[in-house]
Amino acid sequence: MKPINIAILGCGTVGTGVARLLLENADILKDRVGCDLNLKYVADIDTETDRGIAFAPGVMIPDAAKAIADPEVDIVVETIGGEGIAKQMMLDAIAAGKHVVTANKALLAKHGNAIISAATEKGVDLAYEASVGGCMPIIKTVRESLVGNRISAMTGILNGTCNYILSKITDEGVVFEKALAEAQAKGYAEADPTLDVEGFDAAHKLAILAALAFGMQINFDDVYIEGISRITPMDIEFAAQFGYRIKLLAITKFDGQAVEARVHPTMIPFDNMLSNVNGTLNAISVSGDAVGDILLYGHGAGMMPTASAVVSDIADIARNLASNGAGRVPVLGFQTDKVRAIPVRPMDDIVTNYYFRFDAMDRPGVLAAIAGILGKYAISLKYVHQKGRKTNGSVPVVMLTHHAREKDVRRALSEISALDVVAGEPMVVRIEDQNGH
Amino acid sequence: MKPINIAILGCGTVGTGVARLLLENADILKDRVGCDLNLKYVADIDTETDRGIAFAPGVMIPDAAKAIADPEVDIVVETIGGEGIAKQMMLDAIAAGKHVVTANKALLAKHGNAIISAATEKGVDLAYEASVGGCMPIIKTVRESLVGNRISAMTGILNGTCNYILSKITDEGVVFEKALAEAQAKGYAEADPTLDVEGFDAAHKLAILAALAFGMQINFDDVYIEGISRITPMDIEFAAQFGYRIKLLAITKFDGQAVEARVHPTMIPFDNMLSNVNGTLNAISVSGDAVGDILLYGHGAGMMPTASAVVSDIADIARNLASNGAGRVPVLGFQTDKVRAIPVRPMDDIVTNYYFRFDAMDRPGVLAAIAGILGKYAISLKYVHQKGRKTNGSVPVVMLTHHAREKDVRRALSEISALDVVAGEPMVVRIEDQNGH
Repeated sequence: MKPINIAILGCGTVGTGVARLLLENADILKDRVGCDLNLKYVADIDTETDRGIAFAPGVMIPDAAKAIADPEVDIVVETIGGEGIAKQMMLDAIAAGKHVVTANKALLAKHGNAIISAATEKGVDLAYEASVGGCMPIIKTVRESLVGNRISAMTGILNGTCNYILSKITDEGVVFEKALAEAQAKGYAEADPTLDVEGFDAAHKLAILAALAFGMQINFDDVYIEGISRITPMDIEFAAQFGYRIKLLAITKFDGQAVEARVHPTMIPFDNMLSNVNGTLNAISVSGDAVGDILLYGHGAGMMPTASAVVSDIADIARNLASNGAGRVPVLGFQTDKVRAIPVRPMDDIVTNYYFRFDAMDRPGVLAAIAGILGKYAISLKYVHQKGRKTNGSVPVVMLTHHAREKDVRRALSEISALDVVAGEPMVVRIEDQNGH
Repeated sequence: MKPINIAILGCGTVGTGVARLLLENADILKDRVGCDLNLKYVADIDTETDRGIAFAPGVMIPDAAKAIADPEVDIVVETIGGEGIAKQMMLDAIAAGKHVVTANKALLAKHGNAIISAATEKGVDLAYEASVGGCMPIIKTVRESLVGNRISAMTGILNGTCNYILSKITDEGVVFEKALAEAQAKGYAEADPTLDVEGFDAAHKLAILAALAFGMQINFDDVYIEGISRITPMDIEFAAQFGYRIKLLAITKFDGQAVEARVHPTMIPFDNMLSNVNGTLNAISVSGDAVGDILLYGHGAGMMPTASAVVSDIADIARNLASNGAGRVPVLGFQTDKVRAIPVRPMDDIVTNYYFRFDAMDRPGVLAAIAGILGKYAISLKYVHQKGRKTNGSVPVVMLTHHAREKDVRRALSEISALDVVAGEPMVVRIEDQNGH
């Protein structure tokens, strides 16, 4: 079998990792795939920085267009990141008939439908295993291993930065700001951490997962997004008293009518495997009608874990090329004409269990006032905890609800906030305890 | 794309599950794969029993040979089980040019090399995702998703029966016999539980995993096998005091020279994800040079989880057929000429940490006698615990060692057993705490 020629566009962390893996493990890749995976170009405007790799002469080039135009190049790997140049380069590569591999979740979440259409029309493969879950083979698992299942839900810890911060608050009782600073010091969080801690990165990934799971067009705009910056050590402590840990979960469900797609801090029981996923690690659980629940666990980011996923895509395409099998597995796992727009249920209509924490004045009648408003909106309580420590003259009142509708919860909380015996904004954390793994 | 015709041989639990899934989820399978997966035959000598499925006329037949001989059949699914007829049917199907799917780990562990050779020579696919880990896509993950990794180790909880029994002993403090009886009452253990509780089933699966991970010929004969029937609630309690849980682990490692392949009860730290895998659930952890550690978790057995894996193999082959891509991924993940015989390290040469429990007379000098013998064999102790409860006039003496060599341990224990102040056989449990996930 003839060598497969690869061009990497963008030699940052991920691009460097892919180059390293292709070169360092070239022998075992050939033993497995059956042909050489030849790194023909690494294109980056910065050709000077030492990446610790001795590229052969002519491999490192400043001009991506040259790589895309070379008729010998079979596979283009986009590791530029962002949505501007990266998008154009991918479309150019597809137009040139190249198979494309990317790790770019933001790009796929926002422009994936157009890029998928372009690739499908051109008859080239578009592979993106590294875009969700780092080294965990979640894309392949859903598209291929769960092919016989009707998938009803996926639940993931998809952002290592948030998981590190929440683990830190849980283990050490420090406040969010301190945990974030430590994540930044360790390189787990960016200087501007918004994309991670406010849930956007997890939401990008969730939009891709929902499309895969249910055969729907990618719909990032309708994903509900709430980050972790309001979570306090006190909430984590209360959660533990009730048998829960707080994780930033990305949740998608499908009942045959509409899809739920939401990212928010969530309480999950100790016996849910996800509650044991700590530090920067990620995990994804999938529920299907035949498998029940399965879970994948591993590094969701990092140079070499991400490179491992990119290289698995390259090998997949190389194996397709040997048998003229491009498009062997459709991009979203469903035949193109079966991918449809499925409505996303408005957050207002979500039904789940809730944890509330109010800062209330320690006065007779306060609890009755709060409970009265909740009752008016048909929100029934499973548990009430009032004996808190005094904080600034007020005491924390904590409640767990039975199933309630988000819209009712918001209305009730808005009325409760307006009570003059309640200070500040109520804290709300949704609870998932249906799928106790 | 034309329909793919499938024949299932053997309509027991797994065969019935596969038939059900192909029929009940035919629509979504077609939406994903792009063609009909047509169940043409279900062959079983018992055509009378009601399997709860309304087969079309002519599907249920008593004669497997008819299905194998039919030129319209593309894929033969072997769900007969055992090593006699199943082996012959598979070889017949391969000889007839059919692609073959099986869930038969015992057959592959013992006769896999010959069957793989036959399939490779004939140019047909041999798929076996369901043979290890039930619905968990461990075969696909190793062969495809980890293709860029040098795999150094795999560690699995591969037998649900043993995991259920050990979980029961752990949670309820009951003895092995009682936990086994309950497993049998619930249908989790066979009337003759030997295959499961003595570790053979896990060893069959481990032999397959080791071959996949390292590109070696399947070598079941050299797998070290020790079951769980000697584990007592007392050992589990001591383990917990040291921060460990006891699981039946299947472990394989490769250092470039020789492979370790062993199944035995093992102490693992609480913070190892495998220690949280309870009940009948299974999990497998894989260590690779790029990914670090990843773990899969799910149902390792059961009608529909197993059927899900079989159907994923059927879909894979159907997708290959669309592009003339049989053999797209070689059976063991490595090109045939790269699969080699790698020596399995004799158990005597394994180096690990150990837990010992002796029933010793509560007399001065006993500890010195035991420690003296251990010292003679260069076995150094990390921890000694002597203040046990009296059991039959003796007290349990518990020790944890630093790294020691199995051969030295056996010699030392044999000398210690011969001491007249020590009663019965010493209890030995190996400890894995290198890979704290």
